[in-house]
Amino acid sequence: MYPEIGEIHSVAVIGCGLIGTSAALALRRRGMVIYLHDTDPTAASAAAGRGAGILGLPPSAVDLTVVAVPPHSTAAVLADCQTKGLSRAYTDVASVKSVPAREAELFGCDLTTYVGGHPMAGGERSGPMAASAELFDDRVWVLTPDSRTRLDVLRAVADLVTRIGARPIVMAPADHDRAVARTSHVPHLVSALLAARLAGADEAVLRLCGAGIRDTTRIAAGNARLWTEILRANADEISAVLAEVATDLQTAAHALHGDPAQLTALLGRGNAGRAALTTTMSAPGWPSAGVGVYRQLDESVSR
Amino acid sequence: MYPEIGEIHSVAVIGCGLIGTSAALALRRRGMVIYLHDTDPTAASAAAGRGAGILGLPPSAVDLTVVAVPPHSTAAVLADCQTKGLSRAYTDVASVKSVPAREAELFGCDLTTYVGGHPMAGGERSGPMAASAELFDDRVWVLTPDSRTRLDVLRAVADLVTRIGARPIVMAPADHDRAVARTSHVPHLVSALLAARLAGADEAVLRLCGAGIRDTTRIAAGNARLWTEILRANADEISAVLAEVATDLQTAAHALHGDPAQLTALLGRGNAGRAALTTTMSAPGWPSAGVGVYRQLDESVSR
Repeated sequence: MYPEIGEIHSVAVIGCGLIGTSAALALRRRGMVIYLHDTDPTAASAAAGRGAGILGLPPSAVDLTVVAVPPHSTAAVLADCQTKGLSRAYTDVASVKSVPAREAELFGCDLTTYVGGHPMAGGERSGPMAASAELFDDRVWVLTPDSRTRLDVLRAVADLVTRIGARPIVMAPADHDRAVARTSHVPHLVSALLAARLAGADEAVLRLCGAGIRDTTRIAAGNARLWTEILRANADEISAVLAEVATDLQTAAHALHGDPAQLTALLGRGNAGRAALTTTMSAPGWPSAGVGVYRQLDESVSR
Repeated sequence: MYPEIGEIHSVAVIGCGLIGTSAALALRRRGMVIYLHDTDPTAASAAAGRGAGILGLPPSAVDLTVVAVPPHSTAAVLADCQTKGLSRAYTDVASVKSVPAREAELFGCDLTTYVGGHPMAGGERSGPMAASAELFDDRVWVLTPDSRTRLDVLRAVADLVTRIGARPIVMAPADHDRAVARTSHVPHLVSALLAARLAGADEAVLRLCGAGIRDTTRIAAGNARLWTEILRANADEISAVLAEVATDLQTAAHALHGDPAQLTALLGRGNAGRAALTTTMSAPGWPSAGVGVYRQLDESVSR
């Protein structure tokens, strides 16, 4: 047996980018003790300077470590933190969940004290200076426990996420990755392809930009290297959705000069998809309406 | 010789949808006399009920007619209004400019008293109840004079557009259509294809929708029939831009499993395009910074 984690009071944040620093700032609002570390000392200092916590690794084990580094480093950093015995429980914030889970297993991580996480928030700006204590307010924060994740660890991390201001929901890593391909990764890539149409455009073209293209290309400002990594870490799921987009694009291209009903049908499916999104997002109490999250945790972690 | 148009005091608005009714409401703020007509009497009554003007065609010729009907009806309605002698000058609001110009010529319209127009504003909602007097505030409103358009007509319409609250700029119809394919039509179509990926999606997928997909799909709610018509009326220009998108999409699909540098380069071009857009849109006094609009009118109308 092990001592249960219980409520979390002290946290090590490893990686002081937008997400790590914002989580630290949100937890500081709750008076928690936060330690800040980054391989780039400038980033950690900037986060500490913003009041996100104490600079440096914790002098003795804390309750929880949040690994907030890019996806391809997540498992290696987790393994390192566990080797150092940094805390009693661990989570991460990578935008993909299957690859880090697989790699954590390969690195021999202790999967009983680790639960994967992904806050559905971000921003086209990056780094600690863009961080905000409110970044996660009312946003979904997905937790992806393994069959080996201890229930007390899952509960403690879900509680922490709630105290950050977000809404924890539980999914299998593969289900998460399949969903975000559609809701986040393909929209990001397609937004970039739309924005790319303006690279090098004349002033005369740019002056005709209105609210539509402004909104459709907002996320195209995201960090190109980080997004390359995210997209490649979910390549199979994204490819499947891109194939759907390419098929529709071809249908649309033909219908421009061909059958108008085909074009109307495509645009109508766009209407339907948009209606599904707005209905869901405007439901009272969204995203956790009608979901007792702890009850859901108990049901979704079968053991 | 003819009597110059001068300042406009009375206007007939033909077509009481979102755009026609919003223009009427904006002009009512300036105390102008507005007459409202629509083939659908419910729409005209609704517009009049909102205070947009007087129901019915004007009893005698007014200063200007604004034809605010869908693109494929624009030239026919213009011809009809001119036959009736509704006003001394005419403009329209169709989102494409070459097709209506060509059709106006075929219908034998008087092109000396007509200048094409296109306000760069709209909304995913349609109809007179969605209209707003502020819809065009600070938005670009493109005017597309023909070589035969009288300069006093162009000046009067530009003045009217300014009084509506928008910023008139002058372009050739073909240049307008080439630009909006990139800044409006392709973004609309691509937004619909992204939103279509959510049609019939599970609750679990929809709960992972965040700000990114919300913004990229906002315009996908637009009226499918109206947009079918707009897209087909600018089919050649849109096809050219769609071909660029399709090529990039294929490169991206390969790079997901292939060369990361190719993916980073695509996303980097997205960064560049987005930066061009935000730089232009955030310039002081945008969209008409440094452009004396009337001086521009004189220069751009060669006669």
